[in-house]
Amino acid sequence: MSITVEQVLSALKNVEDPDLKKDLVTLNMIKDVEIENRFVRFTLELTTPACPLKEMLKNACVNAIKHFVDKEAEIAIHVTSRVTTPVNSNSLDNIKNIILVSSGKGGVGKSTVASNLAVSLAAEGAKVGLIDADIYGPSVPTMFGLRDAKPSARETPDGKTRIIPIEKFGVKLLSLGFFADPDQPVPWRGPMASNAVKQLFNDADWGELDYLIVDLPPGTGDIHITITQSYPITGAVIVTTPQQVALADTRKGLAMFLMPGINIPVLGVVENMAYFTPPELPDNKYHLFGKDGGKLLAQQFNVPFLGELPIVQQVSEAGDSGLPAVLDRTSFVAQAFGAIAGRIAQQVAIANATLVTPAV
Amino acid sequence: MSITVEQVLSALKNVEDPDLKKDLVTLNMIKDVEIENRFVRFTLELTTPACPLKEMLKNACVNAIKHFVDKEAEIAIHVTSRVTTPVNSNSLDNIKNIILVSSGKGGVGKSTVASNLAVSLAAEGAKVGLIDADIYGPSVPTMFGLRDAKPSARETPDGKTRIIPIEKFGVKLLSLGFFADPDQPVPWRGPMASNAVKQLFNDADWGELDYLIVDLPPGTGDIHITITQSYPITGAVIVTTPQQVALADTRKGLAMFLMPGINIPVLGVVENMAYFTPPELPDNKYHLFGKDGGKLLAQQFNVPFLGELPIVQQVSEAGDSGLPAVLDRTSFVAQAFGAIAGRIAQQVAIANATLVTPAV
Repeated sequence: MSITVEQVLSALKNVEDPDLKKDLVTLNMIKDVEIENRFVRFTLELTTPACPLKEMLKNACVNAIKHFVDKEAEIAIHVTSRVTTPVNSNSLDNIKNIILVSSGKGGVGKSTVASNLAVSLAAEGAKVGLIDADIYGPSVPTMFGLRDAKPSARETPDGKTRIIPIEKFGVKLLSLGFFADPDQPVPWRGPMASNAVKQLFNDADWGELDYLIVDLPPGTGDIHITITQSYPITGAVIVTTPQQVALADTRKGLAMFLMPGINIPVLGVVENMAYFTPPELPDNKYHLFGKDGGKLLAQQFNVPFLGELPIVQQVSEAGDSGLPAVLDRTSFVAQAFGAIAGRIAQQVAIANATLVTPAV
Repeated sequence: MSITVEQVLSALKNVEDPDLKKDLVTLNMIKDVEIENRFVRFTLELTTPACPLKEMLKNACVNAIKHFVDKEAEIAIHVTSRVTTPVNSNSLDNIKNIILVSSGKGGVGKSTVASNLAVSLAAEGAKVGLIDADIYGPSVPTMFGLRDAKPSARETPDGKTRIIPIEKFGVKLLSLGFFADPDQPVPWRGPMASNAVKQLFNDADWGELDYLIVDLPPGTGDIHITITQSYPITGAVIVTTPQQVALADTRKGLAMFLMPGINIPVLGVVENMAYFTPPELPDNKYHLFGKDGGKLLAQQFNVPFLGELPIVQQVSEAGDSGLPAVLDRTSFVAQAFGAIAGRIAQQVAIANATLVTPAV
């Protein structure tokens, strides 16, 4: 007797997405079920290609079918993804999610996290853009080895001339640094800076993007106010180092997103420069800038803790050399960044699911 | 035969101040010469109490008198100082020198350097004030253990009500952080931020100061433009970490001071987080963020290199605990900061001497 589609769907109704707290069938994540005797084939459509639960969900599907339908079933699952978008998305139709990477304080590794997050998500197959909105200290040109790059412009079908983002390591990039001499200071007052950043959003040919990562300047100034008021933001990632002095600023940076007039979901806190381990003393962790500050901050505001990143000489060297550290996919650092990228993508899916009521 | 005043002054004409390139008598640094037979007593008035050449100059005076006048002379030198001021000083009469502590990038330890510089200069006997102008991330309240401090105000003889700076560790302090809830974000646009900072300069009762240190926010934005346009600045100290990404920003921060419309002397570059030495491996230096970047930057712009500071856990802990690291005067860190403070005071004297033509 052949297995039926109904049996398979009925079994998969027992598999719940632990983030979205609904079963996979209700979430419309099971597609194209095909059956041939004991061979079951279907597509599992995740909410992000960087989903850290991928293997866990696949295993749960296999177990459910074997348990509820036929323990001899042979199951092939094709995993794809369709990145979700907040329901209130409007002004930037082709961009599914705008993610702000922010810190109260500068120098905590915000640009390092933003760059490696973008490259990690692209490596998982997502369509990713990165705006470097740190007008006074744009780091993306150095971190991507694009110090002398100048984006060109082209006319798009709507008759407008648009800036073409530069593509590298699978990420579409624009930085205010591309439009200024890297050695020249930019002594601009707030309104001028805000207008420059808006052009990167509005006047560029981004095409279709799953995630547009925005590397914000430190603080809570003009650019933050402009961006949060002008665009539909999926959420903000907060980067901090563990010491109190940084945390004091980070707390304010985080609290800004929660203010009634701004009200942007905080996707979580990344703790950077958590500790240093010399190669000669692999068991020693030197907490050079304090301990667990990021974790405590996440607890205090009841937002997810996305992970900690150690101080690794290669990360700063990689940033300087124009080859983001995650490119070496086998390294410890790439795995740490990859895990954090996965958790961020997961939080994006959760944020979107709590805003959208999925069609049952 | 008794030694004469003329003999002593004639001998001291052979002692040159290596910074100011003139002899001590011409520089008017020898005062109150008194003689009693072979006993010679005089005052050596330096340009800063933190002068790193103090011992060297004293020895040179003794040697000159013994060599040119009487090798049996007994010499007692009383060292004092009168901090010099730029000639063009105008709007803030009672403040001899305004020193900006700046960095292109945040998180490089600018506030740590500014705080420890202020405490070091005060410990040498100078009258020191510190303005924390980092509106979005004021660190001074945490670093000086003054998170809950609220300055009061009083009426001054000119009939105005003025804010009274808080005094701690010998330094008069004002921070924008004193006027805001430490956990509340300050989402202010530029003009509002600039006005707040100007109040700290204009509406506070600073009294007489040798040095007013200003901890600037990172970048080259509104507050920088306002301060450099509104006040007579003696010079700027640039803080950086060694890595390229930080240096790229620092280069711009430094270049801003040299722009024709701004034109502020750069007193030198401090390289922070130069290396880490684990206590278990005292001979190892881990250059976690690159090597010699600050030194090369100083060379490139032909400005003094003021010194490097290692990453020391106690420094960040000290900052967090509200007890600046230099308070423990015997520590390696205090000595490193003290040496840098001395070099900065020295550069201030040089900057002022090149502006003022000394009366011969």
